[in-house]
Amino acid sequence: MMADAGKPFKIAIAGLGTVGVGTIKLLEQQASILQNRTGRALEIVAVSARDRNRDRGCDLGGYKWYDDPVEMARSEEADIFVELIGGSDGPAKASCEAALASGKHVVTANKALVAHHGHELAEVAEAKGLGLAYEAAVAGGIPVVKAIREGLSGNRISSLHGILNGTCNYILTTMRETGRSFDDVLAEAQELGYAEADPTFDVDGIDAAHKLSILASLAFGAKIDFNSVYVEGIRRITPTDIDYANELGFKFKLLGIAEDCGNGIFQRVHPVMVPMDVPIASVEGVFNAVVTEGDFVGTTVLEGRGAGGGPTASAVVADIVDIACGRIVSVFGMPAAQLAEKATLPMDSHIGAYYVRLVVVDKPGVMADITAALRDAEVSLEAVLQRGRDPGAPVSVVLTTHETSEASIRQALEQIERMDAVKEPACFIRIERFQD
Amino acid sequence: MMADAGKPFKIAIAGLGTVGVGTIKLLEQQASILQNRTGRALEIVAVSARDRNRDRGCDLGGYKWYDDPVEMARSEEADIFVELIGGSDGPAKASCEAALASGKHVVTANKALVAHHGHELAEVAEAKGLGLAYEAAVAGGIPVVKAIREGLSGNRISSLHGILNGTCNYILTTMRETGRSFDDVLAEAQELGYAEADPTFDVDGIDAAHKLSILASLAFGAKIDFNSVYVEGIRRITPTDIDYANELGFKFKLLGIAEDCGNGIFQRVHPVMVPMDVPIASVEGVFNAVVTEGDFVGTTVLEGRGAGGGPTASAVVADIVDIACGRIVSVFGMPAAQLAEKATLPMDSHIGAYYVRLVVVDKPGVMADITAALRDAEVSLEAVLQRGRDPGAPVSVVLTTHETSEASIRQALEQIERMDAVKEPACFIRIERFQD
Repeated sequence: MMADAGKPFKIAIAGLGTVGVGTIKLLEQQASILQNRTGRALEIVAVSARDRNRDRGCDLGGYKWYDDPVEMARSEEADIFVELIGGSDGPAKASCEAALASGKHVVTANKALVAHHGHELAEVAEAKGLGLAYEAAVAGGIPVVKAIREGLSGNRISSLHGILNGTCNYILTTMRETGRSFDDVLAEAQELGYAEADPTFDVDGIDAAHKLSILASLAFGAKIDFNSVYVEGIRRITPTDIDYANELGFKFKLLGIAEDCGNGIFQRVHPVMVPMDVPIASVEGVFNAVVTEGDFVGTTVLEGRGAGGGPTASAVVADIVDIACGRIVSVFGMPAAQLAEKATLPMDSHIGAYYVRLVVVDKPGVMADITAALRDAEVSLEAVLQRGRDPGAPVSVVLTTHETSEASIRQALEQIERMDAVKEPACFIRIERFQD
Repeated sequence: MMADAGKPFKIAIAGLGTVGVGTIKLLEQQASILQNRTGRALEIVAVSARDRNRDRGCDLGGYKWYDDPVEMARSEEADIFVELIGGSDGPAKASCEAALASGKHVVTANKALVAHHGHELAEVAEAKGLGLAYEAAVAGGIPVVKAIREGLSGNRISSLHGILNGTCNYILTTMRETGRSFDDVLAEAQELGYAEADPTFDVDGIDAAHKLSILASLAFGAKIDFNSVYVEGIRRITPTDIDYANELGFKFKLLGIAEDCGNGIFQRVHPVMVPMDVPIASVEGVFNAVVTEGDFVGTTVLEGRGAGGGPTASAVVADIVDIACGRIVSVFGMPAAQLAEKATLPMDSHIGAYYVRLVVVDKPGVMADITAALRDAEVSLEAVLQRGRDPGAPVSVVLTTHETSEASIRQALEQIERMDAVKEPACFIRIERFQD
């Protein structure tokens, strides 16, 4: 079935952090089962990292060492180059380019690299008939790239949504369970190793946006377009909002959502309130999940561990096995040249329901002014909640709306925020019900 | 990347029921997107069914008609034979054998065929370098075969469990929601088309057992062994048991469970009580789900529509696309000759918790006798529930146990059922908590 059946498949691994070490351990520990599955030995021949002397808890003595991953990528030893360095540019990009240029397959766990440069790398790989695989870049161990690219290949996928960042999901889950603030829970997550020292990429939604742009490309047959993803993070979520969400029957999730509306696509990452009983609501802590809607298959849900050495190594090795078996797939599900350039729909044209929390002085006439502003923008109210009363002092008032356009709600809020009685910028959160 | 890139890939479809017609509609409707994804046209050239004159709601005029699927399988027109006839033997088996013998790839949705004859068919296909794919045979549109065979290929999978029969899940969900009896809900499911006129394969667990034996082979690298699956169906579940389960915080599910214990494997299909908050508990109605435990990836959950023309056609076409692209995989994840013959562990050695409902005459001393019998068999009680009192009349008494062996609980029940005060055979149900 393939030309090289029987010959060892030689692997060079760049980047020896948690995922790199996990990948080495997996390849060593499962050598015999992997040989059964691929029909050939998977053999690590070379490794590269910045610091040769760091204790990584595994013996690297049998592998050729390179200080420079680009040099390793160009060398003759390996059939495949595994990039676990990270970062959208720098040595990660340079070494992947060098590997492809010298005829090696590439497997990467690097979502930033794929989101920013996946298209150009795909063109090179496909021109040379090389594999370029990145299952580990999205949702850790969950085989969601494979599921969309191959398992659902008979479908037009109209939309997908997912919990794509375990750090944010852990923080939101813990805030809900303990009533603690974002800053407090973030600090704890950093101590536990669930969040980076610089948490920006995670909590500001950028990591999820990288992953979403990859999934959207696969699902819609569209050229990857990371720069068009609308992104909001979770820093502004307060315990007060979480309490109100509970009261209204919702949970907070940071979701990546992609929709193909025919005339263009939405790609958006932002906190949402979801009903407690939709499948994604029960995905807690560091778990990830992706829900797709296909025209023939209907709803499909995939859930599992979205990060960590073991799960990510599982995805890296699945890609290596595919390529070792000769199963080379178009990088984004169809040849890069055939991917469509789809228009981005502006968030203002998003139609949905909204949760709005205002801090207003509790005095007669304020609610009349607020509801008039909503009426003028043609926003229809679903519910109004005001906990307690404190005449003359600022209190929280929560509104939920029926479906409206984002342009309308923004117009109404602009008017409302100009009122003297309104003391803080409105907190507004999109509600997603995911009903059929 | 493949020899035949660009040439049309010619398809013959046998069996034109819901799935066959769904597959034709999908291939016609998505022709352009499928051509983008495979790099070649997917072209139906011939079809076969028993009755040429039935109105199937689609135009078959462009395809060569065969009354005999075996003749079609032998003919020269097609590159791939799609078997959607059903049944473990007869024309389904004969036509798949004929197709492979004449050098055609085979895609089938037939779980009975794969469970009974998958191994010998795999040997033929692999010897000839042909594809034999059956994603649609397990869990409808959910790409679970691909996920286990390829997406989790770096893992040793220690166990899996799943809701593999939508008919049973629909019946159990409806019994719980309405309080109605099994017979009543089954009759309604038959009217709605969710259950067959002869529901035996579904409600007695045989269909789920076919699917479980396939998943177990893939997950454990074991030779498929349908005859060793322990099977109980759902006919004996009563509204009383469902009420007690609710009270105890459990839901009923018909699960397929496979465990690799090192010294042998368990394969079992039976009703279980699961805690309300495990992922599988929220999979309701006609949905299916499969949960796997891999040593590196941890827990992975896949959920979606387990039956119906659209979802099943989605799986059939995904297999066709893979093969049209030259992605030929070992049928059970490794060459058939390397699949291990694993011993079957007897149900008596199963360790778990149990729910037992007894109908006993409500008189002094009965509970003492029952608890003594449990003690003698070394079964440790967790809870005892008796609703209401009716001295001298038969009442239901419910017991739950701590972990014990199935041999012990069976020994205790044998003794208990011999007591004069015990009026009916005990109803006993395994409790599965799926805790880490």
